[in-house]
Amino acid sequence: MYTYNEIMAQGQKLERTKDIVQLMTFNEDAVDVVLFTGCGTSYYLAIAAARYYQTVTGAFAIAVPASELFLHTDTFILTHKKYLIIGISRSGTTSEIIMSLEHLNGAKNIRTMAVTCNSDTPMARLTNELIALNDISEKSVVMTQSFSNMLYALQLYAAKISGRTDILEQLEKIPALVQSALGNGQQLTQVTEDASKKRFIFLGSGAYNGLAKEATLKLKEMTQTECESYSNLEFRHGPISIVDKETVVIIFTQNETEEYDQALVKDIQKLGGFVVIIGIASEELEADLIFKLSAEVDDLNRLVEAVPYFQLLAYQHAIFKGRNPDKPRNLTQVVKLS
Amino acid sequence: MYTYNEIMAQGQKLERTKDIVQLMTFNEDAVDVVLFTGCGTSYYLAIAAARYYQTVTGAFAIAVPASELFLHTDTFILTHKKYLIIGISRSGTTSEIIMSLEHLNGAKNIRTMAVTCNSDTPMARLTNELIALNDISEKSVVMTQSFSNMLYALQLYAAKISGRTDILEQLEKIPALVQSALGNGQQLTQVTEDASKKRFIFLGSGAYNGLAKEATLKLKEMTQTECESYSNLEFRHGPISIVDKETVVIIFTQNETEEYDQALVKDIQKLGGFVVIIGIASEELEADLIFKLSAEVDDLNRLVEAVPYFQLLAYQHAIFKGRNPDKPRNLTQVVKLS
Repeated sequence: MYTYNEIMAQGQKLERTKDIVQLMTFNEDAVDVVLFTGCGTSYYLAIAAARYYQTVTGAFAIAVPASELFLHTDTFILTHKKYLIIGISRSGTTSEIIMSLEHLNGAKNIRTMAVTCNSDTPMARLTNELIALNDISEKSVVMTQSFSNMLYALQLYAAKISGRTDILEQLEKIPALVQSALGNGQQLTQVTEDASKKRFIFLGSGAYNGLAKEATLKLKEMTQTECESYSNLEFRHGPISIVDKETVVIIFTQNETEEYDQALVKDIQKLGGFVVIIGIASEELEADLIFKLSAEVDDLNRLVEAVPYFQLLAYQHAIFKGRNPDKPRNLTQVVKLS
Repeated sequence: MYTYNEIMAQGQKLERTKDIVQLMTFNEDAVDVVLFTGCGTSYYLAIAAARYYQTVTGAFAIAVPASELFLHTDTFILTHKKYLIIGISRSGTTSEIIMSLEHLNGAKNIRTMAVTCNSDTPMARLTNELIALNDISEKSVVMTQSFSNMLYALQLYAAKISGRTDILEQLEKIPALVQSALGNGQQLTQVTEDASKKRFIFLGSGAYNGLAKEATLKLKEMTQTECESYSNLEFRHGPISIVDKETVVIIFTQNETEEYDQALVKDIQKLGGFVVIIGIASEELEADLIFKLSAEVDDLNRLVEAVPYFQLLAYQHAIFKGRNPDKPRNLTQVVKLS
């Protein structure tokens, strides 16, 4: 089982990623916009990284799917502004990211960086800077440790660029926190091994919205279960109509959202939904199942600590449904456009 | 049937909206970022409006859910940059939009505008400028003509602000084009009245991604059918694993995406999916069902012409499934946080 082993080895890999990024130096020239881009899992990573980057550095950051960057360039790139484009790709060979970088290459208002698990690729050769995590070499089609490690690398990058040693200190705790999160997965069987649970919704806001999207994708890729993601309070504005007794809602909570999340939990439970919380949780917070994340680090810095839970949820549910997580339906490891 | 009547009356309402906005004058002081915000349908409208605004005016525009704007203010608002916040709300009373505007009120780097169907509300009183479409007064819980009209108003606003009379001329054709689109709905019964079609995916990129999200919400609100939305080429990066013979994929095409959309259509059909195209379509483009939009206007300007198709799709499917579109499950017209 490649996938399981790759999920469970994340703790050690994150230690190595920490060492790699901490030793690097980066171009610190200011730009108007930092634009994070990728496809699928890497795009969801881009969403989380963009929100994290803007909050930590105080510079504009946005996330755009790589395909849109070359198809609708005028919609995203303004020629009178300076951009840093950060391309994210496990393989460094995904068609759309290469096409975007080639398309934008040489523009005077653009410099580029690659974040990848393979330094010997077209992507690395096309970019001005490179964060290469060559220790990550997943055999699985689905991205697991590559997601957490590339996200963690971009958090370390933001902290370094902004000179925030207080944040770096918090981030240093992450590999150990992830290691212990990986040990808590057994409690997830309450939802992953219950055949009456047929629909999964993941809710996260800010940087956690990227996690919610990635959680949905993991479950869909490995099990083809009906699942969706929203920003926490957005859920009431229409999508809540889907909730019934077959529905599980997993909420990523943060200090800033906790008060509102509690009311949301009750609204969902009233309609018959089963609610799981992953995140910060006070003694008062009530739900059907709670995975409490560390209070030692701030909401944004503990982002990666939440990752093992949704990866294990998808893996366990695949096993329960009799699917092979190593061979997801209709998918290949790298998407190449013909 | 309020909902049906409100959908079918869009053509006339858009004529009136055109007249209202064309007579208005707006504050043209430059800002660093135009931030569009709303909840649910209004948030999806914000996504489409932001992409449209940036492309037409050449000024940065982003879309943020209203709840995130007050819960994670630091993640979205930089104190050293000037913002125009454009709040969108049919009722002008939605809790999160009022909370956001109250929260940001008085900040020196922020001015505000309301886009609403009700000028006599807390929202209108909280903002510096106002686009009020008081002729729109939906009885239905789900937003239909309010969506198309507020989006159209924001397109006219962007064209006016940028002094683009060429774009205004294109936009003037929209009410008539929508009127004729409303007459084509009967062809949708191929998918809406086929019990073997159980899962719907909507794909759109750039401004059309906002439409794809809204299309998903309409169907979910009225019928609780399994449905999702993605950026067109993102769909191959994982979500395509869900496609089978019960799946309908509706693609919003544009000139810029057509070449890639054709390959995508084939990939989906190979897996058994039924593909509907709404948008620009050359003679060569093949799909299972094609709704060709007008070649008289550009991709971005014809945005609202695509709206009747997904609204009628949701309505027809609700009738086919024996649901009452006027009374969607678990929903109220305005969400008020307790």
